[in-house]
Amino acid sequence: MNEMLAAKWERFKKLYVHCEELGLSLDVSRMDFDETFLEQMEPEVQRAFGEMRDLESGAIANKDEKRMVGHYWLRNAQLAPTEEIAGAIVKAVEEVKKFAAAVHAGSVKGVGGKFENLLVIGIGGSALGPQFVSKALGCNKKGHIKLHFIDNTDPDGVDAVLGNLDGALSKTLCAVISKSGGTKETRNGMVEVKRCYERSGLRFGAHALAITGEGSELDKTAISGEWLGRFPMWDWIGGRTSELSTVGLLPAALQGVDIEALLAGAAACDEVTRRSDTASNPAALMALMWYSAGNGKGIKDLVVLPYKDRLELFSKYLQQLIMESIGKELDRNGKKANQGLAVYGNKGSTDQHAYVQQLRDGINNFFVTFINVLKDREDTSMEVEPGVATGDYLNGFFLGTRKALHENCRQSITISINTLDAFRIGVLIALFERTVGIYASLVNINAYHQPGVEAGKKAAQGILDLQAKVVQHLLTSVGVALSVSDIAKVIGDSVDPEEVYYICEHLAGSRRTGVRRKAGEPFWSSTYSIT
Amino acid sequence: MNEMLAAKWERFKKLYVHCEELGLSLDVSRMDFDETFLEQMEPEVQRAFGEMRDLESGAIANKDEKRMVGHYWLRNAQLAPTEEIAGAIVKAVEEVKKFAAAVHAGSVKGVGGKFENLLVIGIGGSALGPQFVSKALGCNKKGHIKLHFIDNTDPDGVDAVLGNLDGALSKTLCAVISKSGGTKETRNGMVEVKRCYERSGLRFGAHALAITGEGSELDKTAISGEWLGRFPMWDWIGGRTSELSTVGLLPAALQGVDIEALLAGAAACDEVTRRSDTASNPAALMALMWYSAGNGKGIKDLVVLPYKDRLELFSKYLQQLIMESIGKELDRNGKKANQGLAVYGNKGSTDQHAYVQQLRDGINNFFVTFINVLKDREDTSMEVEPGVATGDYLNGFFLGTRKALHENCRQSITISINTLDAFRIGVLIALFERTVGIYASLVNINAYHQPGVEAGKKAAQGILDLQAKVVQHLLTSVGVALSVSDIAKVIGDSVDPEEVYYICEHLAGSRRTGVRRKAGEPFWSSTYSIT
Repeated sequence: MNEMLAAKWERFKKLYVHCEELGLSLDVSRMDFDETFLEQMEPEVQRAFGEMRDLESGAIANKDEKRMVGHYWLRNAQLAPTEEIAGAIVKAVEEVKKFAAAVHAGSVKGVGGKFENLLVIGIGGSALGPQFVSKALGCNKKGHIKLHFIDNTDPDGVDAVLGNLDGALSKTLCAVISKSGGTKETRNGMVEVKRCYERSGLRFGAHALAITGEGSELDKTAISGEWLGRFPMWDWIGGRTSELSTVGLLPAALQGVDIEALLAGAAACDEVTRRSDTASNPAALMALMWYSAGNGKGIKDLVVLPYKDRLELFSKYLQQLIMESIGKELDRNGKKANQGLAVYGNKGSTDQHAYVQQLRDGINNFFVTFINVLKDREDTSMEVEPGVATGDYLNGFFLGTRKALHENCRQSITISINTLDAFRIGVLIALFERTVGIYASLVNINAYHQPGVEAGKKAAQGILDLQAKVVQHLLTSVGVALSVSDIAKVIGDSVDPEEVYYICEHLAGSRRTGVRRKAGEPFWSSTYSIT
Repeated sequence: MNEMLAAKWERFKKLYVHCEELGLSLDVSRMDFDETFLEQMEPEVQRAFGEMRDLESGAIANKDEKRMVGHYWLRNAQLAPTEEIAGAIVKAVEEVKKFAAAVHAGSVKGVGGKFENLLVIGIGGSALGPQFVSKALGCNKKGHIKLHFIDNTDPDGVDAVLGNLDGALSKTLCAVISKSGGTKETRNGMVEVKRCYERSGLRFGAHALAITGEGSELDKTAISGEWLGRFPMWDWIGGRTSELSTVGLLPAALQGVDIEALLAGAAACDEVTRRSDTASNPAALMALMWYSAGNGKGIKDLVVLPYKDRLELFSKYLQQLIMESIGKELDRNGKKANQGLAVYGNKGSTDQHAYVQQLRDGINNFFVTFINVLKDREDTSMEVEPGVATGDYLNGFFLGTRKALHENCRQSITISINTLDAFRIGVLIALFERTVGIYASLVNINAYHQPGVEAGKKAAQGILDLQAKVVQHLLTSVGVALSVSDIAKVIGDSVDPEEVYYICEHLAGSRRTGVRRKAGEPFWSSTYSIT
């Protein structure tokens, strides 16, 4: 063997982590770092392990919202800081299983008979996990309950989903999911879907269940509407880490996923990634790689490339988990840090035909995480040419890309898993959750709040208030054509004319309020009126 | 109005571009640049316009592959440099329409009757366009031909698609799409699908059509197999700009999309974006913004946020169009440039619940392109609270996010379109194609080749060759347990043991070749054998 290959092989052997109990291996040998880095970081990693221990035992890790962070308890209730919480976790899983069994048996059913569709109405953490798991575990098979999502407040999107369910609502179960119970997108989706049921002569509550915090607005709606079911969501679970709570477990169970295996995979991964021996802890090693690649500042994007179609939505799931956790303005000392770690990716080898051109040759502003699944299909493969099967090509493209990137000094991590089943999905979720937790400690930020999201919501409410003023002014001047400047002047000094402009365009475009545009030249000088 | 707002409003008015003939506006006022930048760049932009003119008139713009770049001719055949090409374009569109009409009428049908499913077997440019357009134009409506894709060489993915088509193959039309006709992923998908038809007692050719270059391997297969149809793909069309060729038009026409409107939209946009007046040319302005944001080096990612569910796949489509075009090692003088422009995004407001936290507060390594669709749904909306509809929220979240980002010095472009129809999809495709062309000129790279893709393919072939050697060696030592080092030693000095390791793991995991692993400790010392 030549010297370079021998050195690489030595490095590979030294760094390779295999976790037999998880059916998972981690290979960080193709990342640029040396042993000094690991040594240097070791005290920081040990500090991070300590913080994870505090968090797992019920510290107020989300200080802004004065909340505990308890997603690790979901798969091992004994860890919960109180018996009450432990009991609630166990009870919720039992209730989910009981409910799913009743739906499968047909003892809980719609007006039209056994439920054939599940419509999840939820956004962010209330949709990304169920979407990811459904696709990953092949739940869209024929004969299974079919999953549909309303995960936005787009009227056209709502129409598309309801169009596909036309005539099938009486066999459709709606799961309305919102932790706070006050998420506007979800509320809107629910209101529109409810009307659709009513127009079909069906009682919505007889086809609906709620997953929400006890006593929330949504919870009250479910009680007063005599909904089919109510499942708890707790304030110590964040949306982006809720897949293994009722939020993810109920849709999964309804689709026939082995949720015990999902939980067991996560529990097993938690155990492995609790190890304080950094070199054998895949979460700690991954967090260190994120740090090394991005210089502790996220200056390189994380490209997720699973070589498995069923994992196509994993990068979308990770976008939320990682970016919402890590993307923070201030560090835990209140100092400006502007942290982050941008995530994108779809699947290999498909993406090789999309953007691997740039990854190999272009700007070196990323590192890849390959996901390699050893079992390539249920049945035995045919040969597509002598001695070669479809899956051999997939493996060839994975290794070929890994090599082509490495040759051009592009870094990559490789995660290998034996097979893609419920257990392994639990493992992957837990692995990345803990990697995020450890990395957040390393860069000294709070991974468990999302202050920036509030700003957007507040600004959106401001737009709705402004829209009301615009409509009101047009209504008080019926038939009069007013320009943006005219309208802005009346509303007040602090109003942004650009916002008035976009609101007028929206009103004219959506036609509901009777606002009409008369195009001006230049276009921003158009006038608007209600006649 | 306060001074800051007044200044912003002036800037907005000055920069706003409205193209009435396209139903499209572009707002770049929230990007950080000043007039000096536009003045400075003007000679470069004029040079770019000149290069686009040369390209449109048939210059060999793809010098490596000695090819013309003719996607602009597809929507205006008169521009084509020869009458032969012009005739071929017109004829192909006619053939596509005729074929689609025959399928709709049932005169072209499967053994089981009228075609109800269309299975596209293609990857990269042969799948991303059809996927994007299908979702964007709501083609997945009930009663329409349903679209399915095999866009990879993942055996498990093939099984999932074929599982969904179980019992329906006799009413399923397969479109095998590959320009070169030699794309291995596509070939593999075709071979597996063909066997599936044969096992169902159906002749594959009676349900298949090919879209490929004349005389290609795939073309020959289609001829000898007496397939239902063959449609031309020309060497002057790149995969990533092929949506308006037969590649995109045939699937669209089969799904009932008005392909004339698609082409007309692109043609209209081409006309507008050919203008040499930079200030009124939306493609030139966008290209300048990409330049300004990324300092001509792509140092900021492009985040695509359409506020419309049906545009969810646009960012995926743009990932290929932009990253494969711009992500290049060398500039046109052969100098190392490592250009690129990373693209990601899904849809608003959904993504606000995923990663807008990072966009607003975290690392400022991106700029956003909002897509704002004025018409929010077909029918009139109900109110979800007094005076407010679902679409008002969507608009509120769009404007709220735009504002929240701007307050924190995050840049954004806003594209507004009147409505989302076939014409506007043509507009959007053409707008971004020309933006890419102009930007490539500005940064002096060839946007029309993809040399890096070859490296990955070659490396993949190397892996398959190595796999054959590994299997052969295991076969010559039946029953003997061999370690990676044992195997590597025999194969030769230049072999990378890591590759041997991953190949052995793949062989053991996929079980087809009879290779078994005996786990070692440490794991990389496992042994492999065929018994």
